[in-house]
Amino acid sequence: MRVLSGIQPSGRFHWGNYFGAIRQYIELQEGNEVYYFIANLHALTSTRDKELLEQYTLDAALDLLALGVDPDRAVLFVQSDVPQVCQLFWLLLAITPMGLLERCVSYKEKRAQGIPADTGLFAYPVLQAADILAYDAELVPVGEDQKQHIEVTRDIAGRFNHLFGETFVLPRAKILQEAARVPGLDGQKMSKSYGNTIEVFDEPSVIRKKCMRIVTDSRPIEEPKEPEGDHLFQLYSLFATAEEREEMAATYRRGGFKYSDVKKALAEKAAAFFESARQRRQELEADLPRVRQILADGAATARRKAEEVLRRAQEAAGVYRSKGL
Amino acid sequence: MRVLSGIQPSGRFHWGNYFGAIRQYIELQEGNEVYYFIANLHALTSTRDKELLEQYTLDAALDLLALGVDPDRAVLFVQSDVPQVCQLFWLLLAITPMGLLERCVSYKEKRAQGIPADTGLFAYPVLQAADILAYDAELVPVGEDQKQHIEVTRDIAGRFNHLFGETFVLPRAKILQEAARVPGLDGQKMSKSYGNTIEVFDEPSVIRKKCMRIVTDSRPIEEPKEPEGDHLFQLYSLFATAEEREEMAATYRRGGFKYSDVKKALAEKAAAFFESARQRRQELEADLPRVRQILADGAATARRKAEEVLRRAQEAAGVYRSKGL
Repeated sequence: MRVLSGIQPSGRFHWGNYFGAIRQYIELQEGNEVYYFIANLHALTSTRDKELLEQYTLDAALDLLALGVDPDRAVLFVQSDVPQVCQLFWLLLAITPMGLLERCVSYKEKRAQGIPADTGLFAYPVLQAADILAYDAELVPVGEDQKQHIEVTRDIAGRFNHLFGETFVLPRAKILQEAARVPGLDGQKMSKSYGNTIEVFDEPSVIRKKCMRIVTDSRPIEEPKEPEGDHLFQLYSLFATAEEREEMAATYRRGGFKYSDVKKALAEKAAAFFESARQRRQELEADLPRVRQILADGAATARRKAEEVLRRAQEAAGVYRSKGL
Repeated sequence: MRVLSGIQPSGRFHWGNYFGAIRQYIELQEGNEVYYFIANLHALTSTRDKELLEQYTLDAALDLLALGVDPDRAVLFVQSDVPQVCQLFWLLLAITPMGLLERCVSYKEKRAQGIPADTGLFAYPVLQAADILAYDAELVPVGEDQKQHIEVTRDIAGRFNHLFGETFVLPRAKILQEAARVPGLDGQKMSKSYGNTIEVFDEPSVIRKKCMRIVTDSRPIEEPKEPEGDHLFQLYSLFATAEEREEMAATYRRGGFKYSDVKKALAEKAAAFFESARQRRQELEADLPRVRQILADGAATARRKAEEVLRRAQEAAGVYRSKGL
């Protein structure tokens, strides 16, 4: 199965990113042909800071490689390294009904919130479609909130196929496990926009400091507590073995424990969990030319595939191409 | 001065295209650095017929070359041969306010006419902006009705420069002479959409047949007539010397002539006027590999320039680029 996913470079990854998506990307490397790209062109719809965007792009590559994206098994590349995607983008945009994009929730919501809308925000489901279709991707792992965009991709691809003959493979969405929804420090979903995140590559001391800030209630220590639905317990469970999880659940139900002790245990487990990745990241950071080479190699592979699909689409629509191009 | 213009491949050129634009493009070759491209990507917003689009694209090249676009002085190429334009397109689209495009007349009009709007139609002023900015064009010859799009280009370029620092050259519009507005068979402006055209490369016999269909009034032969504002006279004037024009005006004012004789004279002059171009076109048509080579060479030059501008824009916005790309 050919799997594709794009990762927005919007700052350092937090636990929510890891358990909600990245870990699953890494698992998908097994037995699939996977294409993972850093969506820096998408990020342009919100990031208008040159240094930041450059830094985030490279950070995303370092983080992904450190966490287990394996360049021998995955095609890892930066979106802007594949010009064919932009060429395909126009071919798709030309035939995308306005109504299809006007109905897209992400645009509607931001506009309703009074955020001044640039056309990039409006058209970005079509760029996403180009990203997916450029590699004949069959399966696209996404969060529930991105499901609509895969539908949009299918609609656009279907319309193109209808107008110009069979050209694109229609992808399916693979909805990432709901179970992986990770609570943040305040118990809401962990998300950068809520300012409630713990970053994957935070130093152990920082992880500990943040863990101590996890919001808990003020019931007496001795009172028995229900672990299910408790966000501190949920966080602990992410890093614990099944056995440790059961033990902690029993402690909760018994009562007579301090939340601060759970937080400390969580901080320790989390730091240990990411320790080898943190070391790999340091090694990678010390050898940026190697990282850049991995991205260049990935891009070369991605371009070969995208070029094949672009030719097919151009041919279908009657788009001229000079020889030797 | 660097001059750029795009020509939509929407079928064979008619007299209106020639006198309204192409002749002026040819004149601009003198003393300027000119880039002329066949806008096949724009044509995709309306042409959804593979064979037609391919044919129109090649026809436009043949017609332009036959009419005097000189590959030794002009960079002639097909839009789709320059991937950088699509890459630039996204960089611009990302920062183009929706409101700017919503105000564009061409979109508003088509939508008001109830034509189902695709996003290509909506976003095409941004593709036009990419076309212009990709070559640091200073001067863009356009019809009065396209003036707004040059303003849009300036707005977008200005916004990008403001966000990311000086990157793009702001182009100026050169409004094509109003005097060149050519009437069609029915006296309205000659336009494909009115079905009132005479094509530049029509066979002399076809030109004659069409000329005989020019709408005229039924006043008696002997009645003196005012030539100014008479569309048959206007058409004749396009091909006549100043002297011949004066003579014909005198005949009109004297009266005692048949419209059919004027039509015959017009047909003869028009056929003679385009005769050498028609021959050149036949030669070119017999040597398509040469035409394709001209387009490939033009595209190579265009890509070199566009690549330079794209790099500048990517650099400004912090868009990653692998080495060797």
